[in-house]
Amino acid sequence: MSVKVAINGYGTIGKRVADAVSCQKDMEIVGVTKTKPDFEAKLAVRRGYKLYAAIPERVEVFEKAGVPVEGTIEDLIQNADVVIDCSPGKVGAENKEKYYEKAGIKAIFQGGEKKDVAEVSFNALANYEKAVGKRYVRVVSCNTTGLTRLLYMIKQNFGIKKVRATMIRRVVDPKEDKKGLVNGIMPNPIALPSHHGPDVQTVLDVDITTVAFKVPTTIMHVHALNIELEKDAKPEDVVEVLKQEPRIMLVSSEDGFTSTAKVIEYARELRLRYDLFENVVWEDSIAIVDNELYLTQAVHQEAIVVPENIDAIRAMFELADKEESMKITNETLDIGKFQL
Amino acid sequence: MSVKVAINGYGTIGKRVADAVSCQKDMEIVGVTKTKPDFEAKLAVRRGYKLYAAIPERVEVFEKAGVPVEGTIEDLIQNADVVIDCSPGKVGAENKEKYYEKAGIKAIFQGGEKKDVAEVSFNALANYEKAVGKRYVRVVSCNTTGLTRLLYMIKQNFGIKKVRATMIRRVVDPKEDKKGLVNGIMPNPIALPSHHGPDVQTVLDVDITTVAFKVPTTIMHVHALNIELEKDAKPEDVVEVLKQEPRIMLVSSEDGFTSTAKVIEYARELRLRYDLFENVVWEDSIAIVDNELYLTQAVHQEAIVVPENIDAIRAMFELADKEESMKITNETLDIGKFQL
Amino acid sequence: MSVKVAINGYGTIGKRVADAVSCQKDMEIVGVTKTKPDFEAKLAVRRGYKLYAAIPERVEVFEKAGVPVEGTIEDLIQNADVVIDCSPGKVGAENKEKYYEKAGIKAIFQGGEKKDVAEVSFNALANYEKAVGKRYVRVVSCNTTGLTRLLYMIKQNFGIKKVRATMIRRVVDPKEDKKGLVNGIMPNPIALPSHHGPDVQTVLDVDITTVAFKVPTTIMHVHALNIELEKDAKPEDVVEVLKQEPRIMLVSSEDGFTSTAKVIEYARELRLRYDLFENVVWEDSIAIVDNELYLTQAVHQEAIVVPENIDAIRAMFELADKEESMKITNETLDIGKFQL
Amino acid sequence: MSVKVAINGYGTIGKRVADAVSCQKDMEIVGVTKTKPDFEAKLAVRRGYKLYAAIPERVEVFEKAGVPVEGTIEDLIQNADVVIDCSPGKVGAENKEKYYEKAGIKAIFQGGEKKDVAEVSFNALANYEKAVGKRYVRVVSCNTTGLTRLLYMIKQNFGIKKVRATMIRRVVDPKEDKKGLVNGIMPNPIALPSHHGPDVQTVLDVDITTVAFKVPTTIMHVHALNIELEKDAKPEDVVEVLKQEPRIMLVSSEDGFTSTAKVIEYARELRLRYDLFENVVWEDSIAIVDNELYLTQAVHQEAIVVPENIDAIRAMFELADKEESMKITNETLDIGKFQL
Repeated sequence: MSVKVAINGYGTIGKRVADAVSCQKDMEIVGVTKTKPDFEAKLAVRRGYKLYAAIPERVEVFEKAGVPVEGTIEDLIQNADVVIDCSPGKVGAENKEKYYEKAGIKAIFQGGEKKDVAEVSFNALANYEKAVGKRYVRVVSCNTTGLTRLLYMIKQNFGIKKVRATMIRRVVDPKEDKKGLVNGIMPNPIALPSHHGPDVQTVLDVDITTVAFKVPTTIMHVHALNIELEKDAKPEDVVEVLKQEPRIMLVSSEDGFTSTAKVIEYARELRLRYDLFENVVWEDSIAIVDNELYLTQAVHQEAIVVPENIDAIRAMFELADKEESMKITNETLDIGKFQL
Repeated sequence: MSVKVAINGYGTIGKRVADAVSCQKDMEIVGVTKTKPDFEAKLAVRRGYKLYAAIPERVEVFEKAGVPVEGTIEDLIQNADVVIDCSPGKVGAENKEKYYEKAGIKAIFQGGEKKDVAEVSFNALANYEKAVGKRYVRVVSCNTTGLTRLLYMIKQNFGIKKVRATMIRRVVDPKEDKKGLVNGIMPNPIALPSHHGPDVQTVLDVDITTVAFKVPTTIMHVHALNIELEKDAKPEDVVEVLKQEPRIMLVSSEDGFTSTAKVIEYARELRLRYDLFENVVWEDSIAIVDNELYLTQAVHQEAIVVPENIDAIRAMFELADKEESMKITNETLDIGKFQL
Repeated sequence: MSVKVAINGYGTIGKRVADAVSCQKDMEIVGVTKTKPDFEAKLAVRRGYKLYAAIPERVEVFEKAGVPVEGTIEDLIQNADVVIDCSPGKVGAENKEKYYEKAGIKAIFQGGEKKDVAEVSFNALANYEKAVGKRYVRVVSCNTTGLTRLLYMIKQNFGIKKVRATMIRRVVDPKEDKKGLVNGIMPNPIALPSHHGPDVQTVLDVDITTVAFKVPTTIMHVHALNIELEKDAKPEDVVEVLKQEPRIMLVSSEDGFTSTAKVIEYARELRLRYDLFENVVWEDSIAIVDNELYLTQAVHQEAIVVPENIDAIRAMFELADKEESMKITNETLDIGKFQL
Repeated sequence: MSVKVAINGYGTIGKRVADAVSCQKDMEIVGVTKTKPDFEAKLAVRRGYKLYAAIPERVEVFEKAGVPVEGTIEDLIQNADVVIDCSPGKVGAENKEKYYEKAGIKAIFQGGEKKDVAEVSFNALANYEKAVGKRYVRVVSCNTTGLTRLLYMIKQNFGIKKVRATMIRRVVDPKEDKKGLVNGIMPNPIALPSHHGPDVQTVLDVDITTVAFKVPTTIMHVHALNIELEKDAKPEDVVEVLKQEPRIMLVSSEDGFTSTAKVIEYARELRLRYDLFENVVWEDSIAIVDNELYLTQAVHQEAIVVPENIDAIRAMFELADKEESMKITNETLDIGKFQL
């Protein structure tokens, strides 16, 4: 069986998920949508994806621009088994009501949506099983995915009493040239703790508080973690555990990884779009003081949720169990192969 | 008595301290040094400060540039009771050996020096008494000053079991146009916890661990604090305590303070060079979860240590006790007057 | 006679013009407006300005926030002789229709408005006389003001055949923390030449083409100028001419002015808000090749139009002729006093 | 015949040239050097390149780091026909004296070197023939390459009387995390016109003056061009001419290319490391006023000289004439295939 996948919103997340789906044998892309005929729409066509208008009224806009579409989102989902909604935050919930419920199609939403858009919030490592057979699944956000993967590994191996996480966030994605924060630091939100902690709790049972800041960079989020462990552990034990998980990559300042700029320079050598599907943990940041684990990791906000979307499809269609799905996803996306 | 003060290094810190000294009745500037005849040197002269060459061999360079000096650092300290060393990190220790010890002059060093450069590390609120009568005093760094003021107030009023602080640092000062980090986040240091915690402990007895990051902004550091309290407290109790201390200013998102950019916009209305001698705490960040206090503050790295330098002089020359000195310093520098 | 001045929009430009008006003997501020009760509104009150609601419906919002207003913009202009509209681009034209025309009040608009909002576009040096006695005057934008002052001096002394200007613009003001361009360069507009050339021609008769780019900085615009001269000239002749005009300040890399960051560092020593009312021209950029003058200048976008607003009031109310008005404005604002 | 190529300096330029050489049938990489065993060194080994120490004394440093080398630069060039020196500016001249002259090996230098390091400065389009059979060739810098390609096409087709170019430069490359200009604009050099004009004249006979500025971005240089044409032309004629040259790519704001950020977003879809070997010209910037052509282009500083290095090898070893070499290079590197 090959699951027919529609991508609603061929943008930052959508184009990556589309390519990742195309690498799988048990699923295929039947079409992607765009709201306007820009270079990303043209690229979708050049890549061989069938293009549809995300907003039915705009079919003509595409035609005038010389980028004809095959139809609209409504047409697209007629031919699909599942739609991956990659539209901007909150639009997914609107799409669900407008299109997906009527069409009776399964749908995956992204972390910009509220948790009640779906039956279950999803992270492959943490709760794959809960999405099995479900109709509506929400893949949690890039920050939540990054936190969850790491905390899952720590919890499984050392137990967690409490987590305190500070998130230093890139203010906009590289392609966003109108928004930003040019010179400053923005507590976001100002009221503490932030909503990121409860979002982690939608997929992992852990005591966590979070604070978050936006800073003038485009390339990665950074998480400063303080984790009170249940069991005794040494830094080398933590390193060993993290090295077992392909979706976590360890880097070191000895190799020249002094900042997210250097991490991305490395990623540019590895994958198109310099996608890092893995958490990037600084090995030499890992320290344990009074049984509290300190650790710094970076998360590529554009890419990290891509493998989770693939696994979510497999869970929803019961194509594979957790281990098998993650193994296939990792292999097809070269995840876990770039540890130096 | 009017203490004769020399400033060695009329740069970012030095020019501010010089002006602050000039506002005091019990001390006066007898001269300032520069390493080169740039616009800051010319401004010193226009302000009426006697200019000296920080590096004796460069007297001619000043003369050629049409900015004659009164002599060298060696001449300057002959006429002074105390020298405030505002040279870049580690140079202060060299100056001590080369000039200050020989001249038998008292000296104040800045936080860029190691703690053993002086007999005592200093923060006015936390340990004024320890500097009384001392010959060599080190005013702790901007980050340490910001942390110490705040933690002192919390400790005195609620007791502190443990502090975990994340520091998001401006990568360079506004005037630095050659160095930086243009797009990225830099764990600095990578190995955890950072040296900032032990530096706080040079002035305040508190259990603290810190982590620090550099981000591409020039205007303020931000500290995300997690403080385990000994006593029960509510956010409003914390607010009330912080409002008592003039060197801490509370701001709120309701007034439009959404980022350090907005805080500086406010500061531009208040003082020349937009100097903020006060810690800036977001009132609406203050929260208490499981007896752990969460709080976000911003620190103006160029200005926050200025009042501490003034108080350090008073302590060293026994001109006033802690309360009196801080009161005079606050009044002369308008500290505590801009709370909205 | 003291002209009663209302400021509609106490923001980036408005607060500066208010303070500048307050320094003049022949005019006074009767009130300022704000759209919301943020820290700028509170500052206006602390400065002693009477506060009014710029949007009549929002009076209650101010009251709820504990920042009571004296009334609305409609009340304010009843008591004023002239209103200086400092609202965001295009809103001035709406205000004119809604309020100013009905009230029969004179009005000054800023450069964000289209030229037909007023009877005349204004630059003190270039066309003071044209605003004499007028009811509606538009002070041209920061970029146009900077270009016009410089070109006026060159034209008067050497004649101009043609000007080609490249403008490298700060993307947002320091206080704007939501908008921006974080990493990139934006041709703005992309279609060439840009609208800035024709805007200069609203105040100065000169053959000029312009191109403009936005870059990720907040502090100053930079103009790279190529000017074909009618008369022979040497760089030192140009320097001499520019030094005659107080609203133009020359700086040099010898003094350490290597970038706009250094220029602002100097300005922070001079005026509150680091306001630079003067064009800042790099003396050592000035070169003449084949009778074409090359020159680089920087413009402080927040401040440069302030003196022009003051002069515009004098022209409209025939309080003084050009030379007298500019002289008073310059003296009261310390313009021309900081040339090193 | 397969030319044996050594890369001295597997960094920003070197790693790209190495991969480009590897795509050619008539040349091969025999080894690359690094000064230290960082992640780029490890990547070189993973890619299958033989690694050598660029600094003979550092062999042990590599061994200690677990990155053994095959020998030193001196060993490497024994086995090579030509060395491509990709070391930082000015180091190439030192290497020539220390190693290349002694070994009697042919060498290609980059644009950071002075022109007299080589017999000829090189741009494939402009002067391929001059490098034929030469021993020492210097590929001009990224900015000069970008200007030369464009001006060559314009000159061949319309004639050029005079060029005035403003260059808005990225301040550092993406991987550089210590240097920069965080908030400001830096005239660089301040003295006008800049050295870039004469550098263009090392490869193309054209009357050109240039000015240059550094701005806080990492991703591309932008050139604002004013070109006085000899022949009459319309914008559409210019478009047609530029479209003929595969090393020039036209983009349009209609397709969403509003800034260099968007151009790089497109490039991320096309090639590993988002390399743009082509000049990127905004089609809708092209305008002609009074026979002066206005045009804006962007240049990817890390990549644009890569094809020129390949062509330089072919010229030096007389492997192909200009047309043939450029054709092969273009085909192997997919140059000219991404025009939308």
